[in-house]
Amino acid sequence: MRLDFSGERLLAVVAHPDDAEYLCAGTLARAKCDGAAIAVCVLCQGDKGQPTKAIADLVGIRREEMAAAAGLLGAELLRGEVPDGHLADDPDQRSILLEAYRQFEPTLVIAHSAEDYHADHRAASALAEAASWFAASGGHKTRSPALKTQPALWWMDTVNMCGFLPGFYVDVTEHVELKRRMLACHKSQLQRGADGDFSPLEEQMLRQCRARGAQAGVEAAEAFRIHAVWKRARAW
Amino acid sequence: MRLDFSGERLLAVVAHPDDAEYLCAGTLARAKCDGAAIAVCVLCQGDKGQPTKAIADLVGIRREEMAAAAGLLGAELLRGEVPDGHLADDPDQRSILLEAYRQFEPTLVIAHSAEDYHADHRAASALAEAASWFAASGGHKTRSPALKTQPALWWMDTVNMCGFLPGFYVDVTEHVELKRRMLACHKSQLQRGADGDFSPLEEQMLRQCRARGAQAGVEAAEAFRIHAVWKRARAW
Amino acid sequence: MRLDFSGERLLAVVAHPDDAEYLCAGTLARAKCDGAAIAVCVLCQGDKGQPTKAIADLVGIRREEMAAAAGLLGAELLRGEVPDGHLADDPDQRSILLEAYRQFEPTLVIAHSAEDYHADHRAASALAEAASWFAASGGHKTRSPALKTQPALWWMDTVNMCGFLPGFYVDVTEHVELKRRMLACHKSQLQRGADGDFSPLEEQMLRQCRARGAQAGVEAAEAFRIHAVWKRARAW
Amino acid sequence: MRLDFSGERLLAVVAHPDDAEYLCAGTLARAKCDGAAIAVCVLCQGDKGQPTKAIADLVGIRREEMAAAAGLLGAELLRGEVPDGHLADDPDQRSILLEAYRQFEPTLVIAHSAEDYHADHRAASALAEAASWFAASGGHKTRSPALKTQPALWWMDTVNMCGFLPGFYVDVTEHVELKRRMLACHKSQLQRGADGDFSPLEEQMLRQCRARGAQAGVEAAEAFRIHAVWKRARAW
Amino acid sequence: MRLDFSGERLLAVVAHPDDAEYLCAGTLARAKCDGAAIAVCVLCQGDKGQPTKAIADLVGIRREEMAAAAGLLGAELLRGEVPDGHLADDPDQRSILLEAYRQFEPTLVIAHSAEDYHADHRAASALAEAASWFAASGGHKTRSPALKTQPALWWMDTVNMCGFLPGFYVDVTEHVELKRRMLACHKSQLQRGADGDFSPLEEQMLRQCRARGAQAGVEAAEAFRIHAVWKRARAW
Amino acid sequence: MRLDFSGERLLAVVAHPDDAEYLCAGTLARAKCDGAAIAVCVLCQGDKGQPTKAIADLVGIRREEMAAAAGLLGAELLRGEVPDGHLADDPDQRSILLEAYRQFEPTLVIAHSAEDYHADHRAASALAEAASWFAASGGHKTRSPALKTQPALWWMDTVNMCGFLPGFYVDVTEHVELKRRMLACHKSQLQRGADGDFSPLEEQMLRQCRARGAQAGVEAAEAFRIHAVWKRARAW
Repeated sequence: MRLDFSGERLLAVVAHPDDAEYLCAGTLARAKCDGAAIAVCVLCQGDKGQPTKAIADLVGIRREEMAAAAGLLGAELLRGEVPDGHLADDPDQRSILLEAYRQFEPTLVIAHSAEDYHADHRAASALAEAASWFAASGGHKTRSPALKTQPALWWMDTVNMCGFLPGFYVDVTEHVELKRRMLACHKSQLQRGADGDFSPLEEQMLRQCRARGAQAGVEAAEAFRIHAVWKRARAW
Repeated sequence: MRLDFSGERLLAVVAHPDDAEYLCAGTLARAKCDGAAIAVCVLCQGDKGQPTKAIADLVGIRREEMAAAAGLLGAELLRGEVPDGHLADDPDQRSILLEAYRQFEPTLVIAHSAEDYHADHRAASALAEAASWFAASGGHKTRSPALKTQPALWWMDTVNMCGFLPGFYVDVTEHVELKRRMLACHKSQLQRGADGDFSPLEEQMLRQCRARGAQAGVEAAEAFRIHAVWKRARAW
Repeated sequence: MRLDFSGERLLAVVAHPDDAEYLCAGTLARAKCDGAAIAVCVLCQGDKGQPTKAIADLVGIRREEMAAAAGLLGAELLRGEVPDGHLADDPDQRSILLEAYRQFEPTLVIAHSAEDYHADHRAASALAEAASWFAASGGHKTRSPALKTQPALWWMDTVNMCGFLPGFYVDVTEHVELKRRMLACHKSQLQRGADGDFSPLEEQMLRQCRARGAQAGVEAAEAFRIHAVWKRARAW
Repeated sequence: MRLDFSGERLLAVVAHPDDAEYLCAGTLARAKCDGAAIAVCVLCQGDKGQPTKAIADLVGIRREEMAAAAGLLGAELLRGEVPDGHLADDPDQRSILLEAYRQFEPTLVIAHSAEDYHADHRAASALAEAASWFAASGGHKTRSPALKTQPALWWMDTVNMCGFLPGFYVDVTEHVELKRRMLACHKSQLQRGADGDFSPLEEQMLRQCRARGAQAGVEAAEAFRIHAVWKRARAW
Repeated sequence: MRLDFSGERLLAVVAHPDDAEYLCAGTLARAKCDGAAIAVCVLCQGDKGQPTKAIADLVGIRREEMAAAAGLLGAELLRGEVPDGHLADDPDQRSILLEAYRQFEPTLVIAHSAEDYHADHRAASALAEAASWFAASGGHKTRSPALKTQPALWWMDTVNMCGFLPGFYVDVTEHVELKRRMLACHKSQLQRGADGDFSPLEEQMLRQCRARGAQAGVEAAEAFRIHAVWKRARAW
Repeated sequence: MRLDFSGERLLAVVAHPDDAEYLCAGTLARAKCDGAAIAVCVLCQGDKGQPTKAIADLVGIRREEMAAAAGLLGAELLRGEVPDGHLADDPDQRSILLEAYRQFEPTLVIAHSAEDYHADHRAASALAEAASWFAASGGHKTRSPALKTQPALWWMDTVNMCGFLPGFYVDVTEHVELKRRMLACHKSQLQRGADGDFSPLEEQMLRQCRARGAQAGVEAAEAFRIHAVWKRARAW
């Protein structure tokens, strides 16, 4: 069995600069290989994640890191530029994301699930959901015209697989190395080991995609659920 | 088995002008026949749902359409007048709904469920819940005095039955024709077929109440769940 | 709001002689007052519940106790006569219950929920469910002819309310005294306090219907869920 | 997005002769078009579903009807020959199904979900699950040798969509006409309208695949969930 | 089996002045006896809960009542000073709670569950969750320095046990009398019986801890669930 | 926070000879260190798990392997001696387990969860549950007298963590090495790598307890849920 992403336009909506690497970059790479167009929308600046030895222009550095990672994937990068910890499902932030949807014109949005561990992830989840309706609603004006139809929406796994019951798995065995290289672009994050917040990121990412793989009979997998509401679910 | 609504005062709290027609008008009509008093509170203006050929005073037109539909049902109409897409569970909007509760004095509120497809529906759900407590709390002041007791609260079905597990069904076989005529009042919506957002509304409404009916052994039904928390659940 | 049971025929299917008293007798009494016909089918003999001072003909004594309790309720008593601990959803025991359904012709069956604490309760639940389909299936022969239509099916609360999320509540405030008197008929059980298995039964029964009442705004209530599958759910 | 079934071997495990038509035949046809091999295993004889005017050799007639329907689909037909109402997850019936798995060598089994309305459907669900492990376990002997690997397992929708939360949808728009023609093969069932058990089957089947389609943005769909346990889930 | 709280620092985060008494004070007392440090953070002022005969400086009175109750427990008292009904998970209120966490340095936070009956309880739940991450994140500045590690987080029971499935129980048999005495400190609340909102508080509190006790084989218990997400769950 | 097992008597009820090693041996070792008495009851013989090169007296060999592993743990070993694939919750097998309970007199039983991947695991789960009630019921006779009180009951994690939502975690960091050595006793299993059924067992076991550890902030953990029904839940 194989999900064929050809002809799709995938947009991953994530809270922080390295979330896509961790939770869905393998699937984005899979879709890219099938011929899909790919974009990543990072809603926050990553401005509050200073390593022990502070970086002067952290926001600028993280922009460069995101761009480098997106470049490896061959994905378009969209940025929300909201300060860390300030994501909220309100009209202003919805407009930012709505405009991103209208520029990229996704057929499928992949977003954090509502039960993830971080308040910004949950706000990103709510924003991605709201925008997935309003993007196709002409009455909600932004610079670009409304989409012709709502994109499908998938929820992605949570960090460390906590509380997430997979609806299906995507085989990313061929793309683990790319996930690793993309993650390595986020040097400012990888320096943070010393502050106690972060277990070594690479090891954690590898453990999760291998554990999901073991559940699904492959070497590495990523787990998702569809958003089963009107206009956001698709028949395959 | 029959639920007897006599002596009740039912208030449906919905986001948009035609939501009640779609999800609970049959039950409101049933209750009306039992002798209950009925009201519908529409929180949004419906200002962003322009048909392809734009209507100049859409807000005014929709007010007339709502009034016509409520008139067919014999229901009082209350309006929140919030712009579409701007519903939110905040103190100001709570006060609007709280005052509506205090004016109509419902014994039972019927509201969108928290898992429905539209951000405004979910906000309406949260507002209806918050107001169902605060309406009976004297410390929360509005023009009218506090209710003596909290109303019961039911969640209604979602559009297209997505993700909603019915707690019970109300037989609306006798009231399908009224639902159809009420929906027909919303002419500005029925013109929207061309913009891709809307499958023919009437067919969708009929399919849903017949499918719920088939689950419950009647020709047409509407599905609900109680809100099983303190002061909002009742014993029948 | 009031559920009207007039015209119904209610059959409670329970595992042991005093289960109905504990979990649904108030609702049976309510329905009786509305004009419904009532029966209780006790599947097990109650043969293994000896008090410390053993009773010679325990099975016979418990039959008398059941009959006395059913008499207070004005209910027909049906007995499965399966030894305690041997209830199982197999063809033979299905036939026993199927015949009971066909004799009483229920429009509504009330049975233990699948998550209750005792293996016999869960077997009774499975049997009640299977029989609720087969009773109306002509190909499954017993002495009496098949029912014309399947009865509706409700699941009742669990002992001590463990793990049961109520779908709705029935007000039994007026019938608590009857529950208490019915329970008092089971003298052989009430003597068992000394063997450690049983907290004082009356206190436990009262605590539960009062706690359910407190959840639903009345003095005493019983909690149920519908069985939401084809032909066993009804619209009210 | 499209699920590609090429190279797969699909086995539908159903309780009664016309269950596959109702719940998964569109997906089987989709897979067939992709180049997959298809089989249907009907576990019961259908011996208890007599129409009002009894058919002498009902078992024989239903065998012919099943064969005709499978022929239209281009599927291999396997029969369990268990009498209706006697399906149970026991070692003997497991062996029957185990041997069927070993003969057809499925890569994907599609079976009734555990929450369906009929005791035989739930037994078929348990049998399909047990066999999906034991078929690849050499210690469990049948005529044919053990499979090299366990098949994947999907649960199919319930009749009338009661209590089933779809994990994903398969587009069967192109195959509705085939579902209809397959169902028409079951003439002995279609005559049963008069006995009260059966609403017109064709209408019910069409209503369900159209309602699932409406949830997923296509004309007709079938709904499934993966069985997310070790060795029975796959990454796509 | 016994949970040993020695060495812990417990912080209960509640919405209103008497919520801790009702839902978790027994567990706080248990932990105190084990040698843990205890604090209660009351987020709202309790300014809208006037008894029939209004109290002039209600906010001041409730501060004294809280202090008295905390004193009986031997707990530090922290106050959020948000007006009743205005709790919301926004950056400003997060900062208040974040600073409270940083001052007390909890190893375990106990907070309202997301499904409780009151909008303020649910907002307190969301705030406690958000703060449990940000308190250990150096980028989120408040007066005090960031915590070295995130506290664990438990959800507490709902009022009247509505909709809450316990993950585990804490035996509070020895501390019921203290709960009762702490509750008695809230004299301004206990006078409110006349306004219809409040059943006698003491009786309700006792009924709940005894019903939870009956579920867990002790005289009185309190029920909780862990928050099973990254960095907020612990192994015992 | 620490769960203290001193004074307890733990009985793990598992289907196959190496299941305890995989899913709960770390917790048994933890409890042993606290001073608890430990036993493992293996219900099946392990007779169908032949490695590629068949072992003549496999049942005998596996008995020795189990004894060796139990010896390392310092646990009593009880054996059900049911052939693999034949576990079922019937009166005969209940009696076997009931007698085991009565011999060891557990205060806590740990058993497979009802959602695990293998039919024998689910049967073991049902048996452990039924026996946990009947063991304390004098009417159900076996050689040994009835227990004075029912044991508590916990459900253990599933293989590969599929579909299991942890209620709490036990820290087994200090006992991973013992788990590894116990698993190494099952040489006949470890030889089975070649038949395709088994990924390398040790790696799988380590991956799981480390992934559960990562969710709970320690190096290695095991996950459980309480069985929240009458007489089987305890307050800690």
